[in-house]
Amino acid sequence: MSTFGHYGESHCRSVGCIIDGCPPGMELTEADIQPQMTRRRPGQSAITTPRNEKDRVQIQSGTEFGVTLGTPIGLMVLNEDQRPKDYGNKTMDLYPRPSHADWTYLEKYGVKASSGGGRSSARETIGRVAAGAVAEKYLKLAHGIEITAFVTSVGAVHMFPPTPEMPTPSQNPDFLKLLETIDRETVDKFLPVRCPSEEASKRMEDCISEFRDKEDSIGGTVTCVIKNVPSGLGEPCFDKLEATLAHAMLSIPATKGFEFGSGFGGCEVPGSVHNDPFIRAPESAGAGSSGLPRSKLTTKTNNSGGVQGGITNGAPIYFRVAFKPPATIGHSQTTATYDGEEEGVLAAKGRHDPCVVPRAVPIVEAMSALVVMDSLMSQMARIGARSHLPPLKQTIPPSSNGVSSGQ
Amino acid sequence: MSTFGHYGESHCRSVGCIIDGCPPGMELTEADIQPQMTRRRPGQSAITTPRNEKDRVQIQSGTEFGVTLGTPIGLMVLNEDQRPKDYGNKTMDLYPRPSHADWTYLEKYGVKASSGGGRSSARETIGRVAAGAVAEKYLKLAHGIEITAFVTSVGAVHMFPPTPEMPTPSQNPDFLKLLETIDRETVDKFLPVRCPSEEASKRMEDCISEFRDKEDSIGGTVTCVIKNVPSGLGEPCFDKLEATLAHAMLSIPATKGFEFGSGFGGCEVPGSVHNDPFIRAPESAGAGSSGLPRSKLTTKTNNSGGVQGGITNGAPIYFRVAFKPPATIGHSQTTATYDGEEEGVLAAKGRHDPCVVPRAVPIVEAMSALVVMDSLMSQMARIGARSHLPPLKQTIPPSSNGVSSGQ
Amino acid sequence: MSTFGHYGESHCRSVGCIIDGCPPGMELTEADIQPQMTRRRPGQSAITTPRNEKDRVQIQSGTEFGVTLGTPIGLMVLNEDQRPKDYGNKTMDLYPRPSHADWTYLEKYGVKASSGGGRSSARETIGRVAAGAVAEKYLKLAHGIEITAFVTSVGAVHMFPPTPEMPTPSQNPDFLKLLETIDRETVDKFLPVRCPSEEASKRMEDCISEFRDKEDSIGGTVTCVIKNVPSGLGEPCFDKLEATLAHAMLSIPATKGFEFGSGFGGCEVPGSVHNDPFIRAPESAGAGSSGLPRSKLTTKTNNSGGVQGGITNGAPIYFRVAFKPPATIGHSQTTATYDGEEEGVLAAKGRHDPCVVPRAVPIVEAMSALVVMDSLMSQMARIGARSHLPPLKQTIPPSSNGVSSGQ
Amino acid sequence: MSTFGHYGESHCRSVGCIIDGCPPGMELTEADIQPQMTRRRPGQSAITTPRNEKDRVQIQSGTEFGVTLGTPIGLMVLNEDQRPKDYGNKTMDLYPRPSHADWTYLEKYGVKASSGGGRSSARETIGRVAAGAVAEKYLKLAHGIEITAFVTSVGAVHMFPPTPEMPTPSQNPDFLKLLETIDRETVDKFLPVRCPSEEASKRMEDCISEFRDKEDSIGGTVTCVIKNVPSGLGEPCFDKLEATLAHAMLSIPATKGFEFGSGFGGCEVPGSVHNDPFIRAPESAGAGSSGLPRSKLTTKTNNSGGVQGGITNGAPIYFRVAFKPPATIGHSQTTATYDGEEEGVLAAKGRHDPCVVPRAVPIVEAMSALVVMDSLMSQMARIGARSHLPPLKQTIPPSSNGVSSGQ
Repeated sequence: MSTFGHYGESHCRSVGCIIDGCPPGMELTEADIQPQMTRRRPGQSAITTPRNEKDRVQIQSGTEFGVTLGTPIGLMVLNEDQRPKDYGNKTMDLYPRPSHADWTYLEKYGVKASSGGGRSSARETIGRVAAGAVAEKYLKLAHGIEITAFVTSVGAVHMFPPTPEMPTPSQNPDFLKLLETIDRETVDKFLPVRCPSEEASKRMEDCISEFRDKEDSIGGTVTCVIKNVPSGLGEPCFDKLEATLAHAMLSIPATKGFEFGSGFGGCEVPGSVHNDPFIRAPESAGAGSSGLPRSKLTTKTNNSGGVQGGITNGAPIYFRVAFKPPATIGHSQTTATYDGEEEGVLAAKGRHDPCVVPRAVPIVEAMSALVVMDSLMSQMARIGARSHLPPLKQTIPPSSNGVSSGQ
Repeated sequence: MSTFGHYGESHCRSVGCIIDGCPPGMELTEADIQPQMTRRRPGQSAITTPRNEKDRVQIQSGTEFGVTLGTPIGLMVLNEDQRPKDYGNKTMDLYPRPSHADWTYLEKYGVKASSGGGRSSARETIGRVAAGAVAEKYLKLAHGIEITAFVTSVGAVHMFPPTPEMPTPSQNPDFLKLLETIDRETVDKFLPVRCPSEEASKRMEDCISEFRDKEDSIGGTVTCVIKNVPSGLGEPCFDKLEATLAHAMLSIPATKGFEFGSGFGGCEVPGSVHNDPFIRAPESAGAGSSGLPRSKLTTKTNNSGGVQGGITNGAPIYFRVAFKPPATIGHSQTTATYDGEEEGVLAAKGRHDPCVVPRAVPIVEAMSALVVMDSLMSQMARIGARSHLPPLKQTIPPSSNGVSSGQ
Repeated sequence: MSTFGHYGESHCRSVGCIIDGCPPGMELTEADIQPQMTRRRPGQSAITTPRNEKDRVQIQSGTEFGVTLGTPIGLMVLNEDQRPKDYGNKTMDLYPRPSHADWTYLEKYGVKASSGGGRSSARETIGRVAAGAVAEKYLKLAHGIEITAFVTSVGAVHMFPPTPEMPTPSQNPDFLKLLETIDRETVDKFLPVRCPSEEASKRMEDCISEFRDKEDSIGGTVTCVIKNVPSGLGEPCFDKLEATLAHAMLSIPATKGFEFGSGFGGCEVPGSVHNDPFIRAPESAGAGSSGLPRSKLTTKTNNSGGVQGGITNGAPIYFRVAFKPPATIGHSQTTATYDGEEEGVLAAKGRHDPCVVPRAVPIVEAMSALVVMDSLMSQMARIGARSHLPPLKQTIPPSSNGVSSGQ
Repeated sequence: MSTFGHYGESHCRSVGCIIDGCPPGMELTEADIQPQMTRRRPGQSAITTPRNEKDRVQIQSGTEFGVTLGTPIGLMVLNEDQRPKDYGNKTMDLYPRPSHADWTYLEKYGVKASSGGGRSSARETIGRVAAGAVAEKYLKLAHGIEITAFVTSVGAVHMFPPTPEMPTPSQNPDFLKLLETIDRETVDKFLPVRCPSEEASKRMEDCISEFRDKEDSIGGTVTCVIKNVPSGLGEPCFDKLEATLAHAMLSIPATKGFEFGSGFGGCEVPGSVHNDPFIRAPESAGAGSSGLPRSKLTTKTNNSGGVQGGITNGAPIYFRVAFKPPATIGHSQTTATYDGEEEGVLAAKGRHDPCVVPRAVPIVEAMSALVVMDSLMSQMARIGARSHLPPLKQTIPPSSNGVSSGQ
C-alpha cells in the first residue's frame, strides 16, 4: 500500500485518504467511487446493522475537469455523527469488550478513546473502499481487469463444502465455472447475503437471522476472483503477489485467515494432481485487452490460483478470506473491568451487525485492487526500463541446459 | 521486513543478507546462527532430499569482538555448487515445470535462468533463516520471547483434525496445552517429521514415504506459537500484526494459506463462544521478563491467537501455514513446451523432496522473528516518544462514557 | 518524511495532510497549528503578495477532547478560490513560464493543469507547515527543542557577508551568539523581512522594494537553528541527519542550495582550525530537559553545525537554504510557446511576490521539525531496544586500542 | 536509494551491497564495475593517502553468463586488513577525534568500535561506488546518459571564482561550455587533482601539498554534470530530483553543502536574468537516444541546472558539493578525553589524506547514478501505466485558460 495513506476514527470530523501515484489522464469523478461506498454501507437489509449512514465521498484534489492530473488524490467523507455518544450503557466504559480492540489499543497507546477502539472502527474501511474504487477504475480501463468478491460461507453453511474426496474447491468444476462467469451485478442479486446461489444464500440468511435473534454473531468467508491480470506481476521473494494480497486481506478488520488457489485443502492433494499442466494459450485469451504481450501458455487446471512462485501467470487469481464472528454482541458476557479489579456482565445495547461478510465484499475488492495496482506499477517500471536496453550481443550458450530445483 | 534485504540464486557464488537496525551491544557470533541453518538443511533423513549441503554462515560486518555494533550485519553462505549442471534431462530445458516458477519468471523478466526459476530456489530461504536467527537472539535475550514451529498435518493426516463440534483447534484443550509447553528440543525429538506426537508423526512419516515411493509429492501445514510477546505490538490498520505475519508467511516458497488464532474454523463458532473474556492477569504472568510493564488483564480463552484489532494482547500468538505439494516430481507429467508449440512428457530426474513441511519449520520461525522484531522496534519508538511528554494538564471529562462499535 | 503524506493544488477543493506516528497523549488543538499557518500566509506586508488568504486549519482526526490518540492526524485547509480563474492573460495559456514548473509538469504527466504547474503551487506548502507545527509541539514539550529560522540574505545584501579572512559565518562570534539567543518573537519584530538586524533588514527591504517596482524578483537565503537536540540522532550512512535535512529543504519550492555548519565557506578553512575540539559539557547544558542522558562532552567551536558523521552531538544544529528569485514576474520575457512553434513575449499580470524568503521562514522551520521528529523516533526505537538487553558478559579486551581513520 | 542496501566497516571481513531492481537482460561483469572502484582507491598519487588497497569487486548473484537476471545483485569486496590494529597511538583510544564520528557513534550506539567510527569509515563508500557503476552501465546503455564529476575548488583556489558581477558560474560561458564537453577521460588527465584546468589544477596541487606538509588538511568542492537525462524525472513535492540528489550527496562522508544550477550565487541574480527562456529544441537534441519522446522545447540558458519544479527539463543537470577538510590530521590538537575528565593533546600518527576531493569524484558520480536510476524507474512506471489508458473522451474546455502562480 505504498501509494495510499488514510485517517479517521468513528467519531472524528471526517475519514479520508490520499492516493499517490494514480496515472494522469484518466477520467475520474465522485460517480466512479460512490457505488462501492454505497455497497459498503450498513443498513442495506434487515440482517445488517440498521443505522443509516450517508457516506458521500468528495474528491479534494488531484483531478481537474474530471481528469486525473497525476498528483495526489485527496478523498474525504464527513462523519455525520461526530461526537461521542452515550449508548446508554455505562458498563461499556468500565469493561473492555472481549475480543475487541478496546483493550489492546489502550495497551498500545496508553490513551483510551471514548469510542472504545477509536481507530479500530469499521469506519476506517471507508478510505480503503474509496481508494480501491480509483484503482479499480484504472485496472478496468487500462487492462480490462475485473475484480469480484462474494460470500462462500456463513457459519457452517458452505457454498462449496469440502469433502474428503474434494478437500479444496479448486478441483470442483462448478466452482471454476463460477469464477469465470461471476460479476458484481450477479452478486448483488443475492442481497442481503451476496452469495451467488439461491439455495446456499437462503440457508445463510436463515443462519444470520438466527444469530441476530439470539443477540449473538457468526463468522463466514468471502471468496474473490481477479480476472484478466497480465502475467509477470508480483515480486519473487518478499513481495510475492500472494504475500501482498495476504497482507492486505489480513489488514481488514475481523479477518482470521487467507488462502489462495487450492489453499489449505490443496495440502491434501498429491503433487501429480495438484500441478497445473501448461497448454498453449488460445489466441483470444489472456492479456489481449491489456496492451501487454499475450502469453503463449496457459494452464489446464488452476490449483495455483493464478500465481506461481509469487508471480502471476495470466490465469484468474482467486483467494478466500475468513471473517470471525463480530465481537460486539447483545448477548451478555462475563468479563473483567479495565483495571482488572472485578468481573461483571457486559451486554452491548443497540443493534449490532450479526455477521460482517456481506458488507466485507466491497472491502475485499478494494484491497485487491490496491494490491494489483501496486504490483502493476512495479512491473511497468521493469518492463519500461528493460525496453530501452539494446539487444544482447552475447547469446546464452546452447549447452546451458542444466535445470535444478535448488534447495 | 524493512530491516532486511537479501540476495542469491541456486547456482551463484553465494547467498546472503544484510540486517539493518539490530540493536547494538548484543553478543553475537556465527554459533548463534548456525543451528537454525542446520535445521533448514536438506538431507536430514531418508524422507528429505539427500543432497548434502554445508551452509556455513559467515558474519561479514556489524560485530566486533563478538558484540553487535548497531551497524548493518552482513551474512554470507557460499554456494558449493556454483555452476549450472546438467541433471541429465534435456526435456527440463524445453518444458517449464508445471506449478513451478520457471514460466512466470520468464514472463516477468524475459530472461531464462539456466536453473529454471533461479531466484525462486529454496536456497533463497538461507538468508531468511540467518537473519531470523539474529532477531530471535535479541527477542529471547531482551524479552524472553520464544518461537516454536512444528508440523500439524501432512496430506490428510492431521494432528488435530477438525470436527463439526470442534471446527478449530483453538477450542481443543490439548492443543492449547501443547502451545504452552512445546519447545524446539521437543520438536526435534520427532525428526524426521517434526510433529510432536508419536502417533501422528508415525502416520505422517508413512504418508510421506508412500508419496516418495510413487515419485509423487504431498503438502502439509506448520503451526507456530510465539510466547511472551509484550502487549501493544502491531499497528492498527495496514500493518496489523496478523497482516505482517501473513505477508511474511505467504512470502515463503510453496505456501498456500495462513490462519491465526481460531482461523477458518473460527468462522463457524458463535461470537458468544468465540469471544475471549478478560480476566485479571496473574502476578507472575505476562511481560515480566520483558522489562515492559506487565498487563493487568489476560484472556480466559485464546481464540484471538494473541492479537486483537491487529495489536498483541500478551497471550501466546499462534498461527498455521499451508504448504502445497512440491511441484518438482519424478512422476511423469504431460505439459507444453516454452514456446507452446508442442506438448510432451516431463519427468524430473534425481531425487526430490516429497514434502517440505519438516524443513519449513525453521523458516517459519525465522520469518516470525523478523516480523515480531519490526513491530517491537516500532512500538519502542512510540513508547520512547510518549515517555518524554509531560503529564496531561487536562483530564478526560468524566461524562465521556459513550462507546460505539463504529461502522 | 515517512510519517507524512499530503495533497493539494492551487485551485482544488482543499489542501491537506495526514500525519502518522504522532505520539499519543499530547495536548493538541488547532490553536497549536494556526500561528505558523498565519506566518506562512501571503499578504503580510507591502512587499509580499497582497492576495488575502484565510488558511484556517481543521483537525479531521487523531485527537479527542484535545489530546492525541496516537492514530493518524488528518489536517485540512479549504481553498477559498477553488475554480481556475482567468488572470486576464491569454498568453500565459500559450507559453510555459520560464523557470517555472509549467513545462516540466506537462512533460512528466502529459496533462496540463489549468493552473499551470498545479501541484507545484506554493499552496502545497500549507500541508507541510501544518504537519510541522504538530511535530514542533512535540519536540518542544518533550525535549525542549526550539527551531528558529530567519533571513540572512536578500540578493547581494548579506547579514554576515563572507570575507577572505572569514569565508564562513561559523567562525564569526556575532553569528554564533545570534544562534544562541534568537527566537521567533524576535524574528517577527523584523517584519516584513524577518532578518534580525535593524541595519541589514532595512537594506533588504529596500532591495526587495526595488525589484518589486521593476516588476522583477530577487532571491535570498534563510538560516535555521535547532537548539536542544539530543545527541545520537541521524543514521550513519544514507540517512545522515544533514542528508535528510538537505532532502527536506531542497523539496521546498524555489530552493537552490543547502549548507550546514561551516558549509561551502568551510572548505576554505584548514582542518586544524575547522576541527571542533571537545570540552567537558557544563552540568546545566545539553539534553537535560529532554529526559535523555546528558552528554559528557560538548565542543568548543561549532563548525560541525551540531552534526558529526551524520549524527547529532548535542550542539546547536544550523544550516542555510538558498531560494532563487521567483519565476513569475511582471517583467516581459521572450520565450517559446508550448508547441515550440513560435516565440513571443510573456508578462504576468497581477501582483507577484518579488522575494519569497520572508514567507519561507515558517516552511523551513516546519520541514526541520519533521526531519528531527523522524530521526528522534528512529533513535527512540534503538535506545528502547537496547535498554532491554542484559549487560554484556564479555568485556572488550583492553588491548583493543587500535584506531584507524579508514579509507 | 530504495533499491540499494549496503554493509561494512573498516576492519570487518568484507564490505558489500545488494542492488535490487536492476533491469534484466543487461550485460554485466566485474569489468564494468572495477574501473570506478579503482578510481576511488587511495594511494593514487603523492597527495593522497599512500596505503595500498586492492578493492577487487566480486559479483555474488543476480547475473548468469554475464547477463543480469533481474534478481538482486550481491556485490562484495574483501577487506584485506580485517583486524583492528594498533596505530601506535594510545591517545587515540582515549580521545574522540575532533570533528570525527568517534564521539557521536558512541553517543548513538553506546558501543565503541575499536576502529573509532567503525561504520563512518571511508570504506563504506566502496559499496556505493560499486552499486553506482551498475546503475551507470544501465543509464549509458539505455539512455546515453553520461555522468562526469570534477574538482572545482580546493581551499580558496577556485576554477571559477565568484565575482560580484558573476556570483554564480551558471552565467559563465566557459563553465557552460565545459559542462557540455567534459568527460571522465579528460578529468583523469588532470590527476592527481582531477580539476580539468592546467592552471587551476597546478595551484590546487600546490595547495594540497602545502597542507600535507603541515600535517594539516583542506576542503574543496566537486561539480558534477549529468547529460542526456530525459525530461520528466523527479517527483513534484518531497522527492524533487534536486531533493533526492541533495540527500544522496549529503550522505557522502565529509560533505557540508549542495547547490544545483545557479545555486547560492543565483540568489543574487534578478529573476529577469535568472529565468531560462524556452526555445524550440533542435531536431538532433534531447532524449533522442533514450527511446523516450524528444522534448519540443529546451532552454536558452540553464540557471535551472536541468531541473524545474523538481522535474527534469532535458537540459544538463549540474550541481556542486562541498567537502570539509578531513578531521584526522597529524597536527596536534587539544581536546577532551571520552569521559570528559581531562584535556590533552591528540596527534594522529601515520599519513592521512590532506584533501578528499580528488577521490570523492567517483563517489559523487556513483550517488548521482543511483538517484537518476530511481527517478527513472518511477517515471517508467508512470509512463507505462498511462500508456494503457484509452484516449480521453472528454476534452479540456477551451475556456480553461486561467493561470495562477498559486500561493
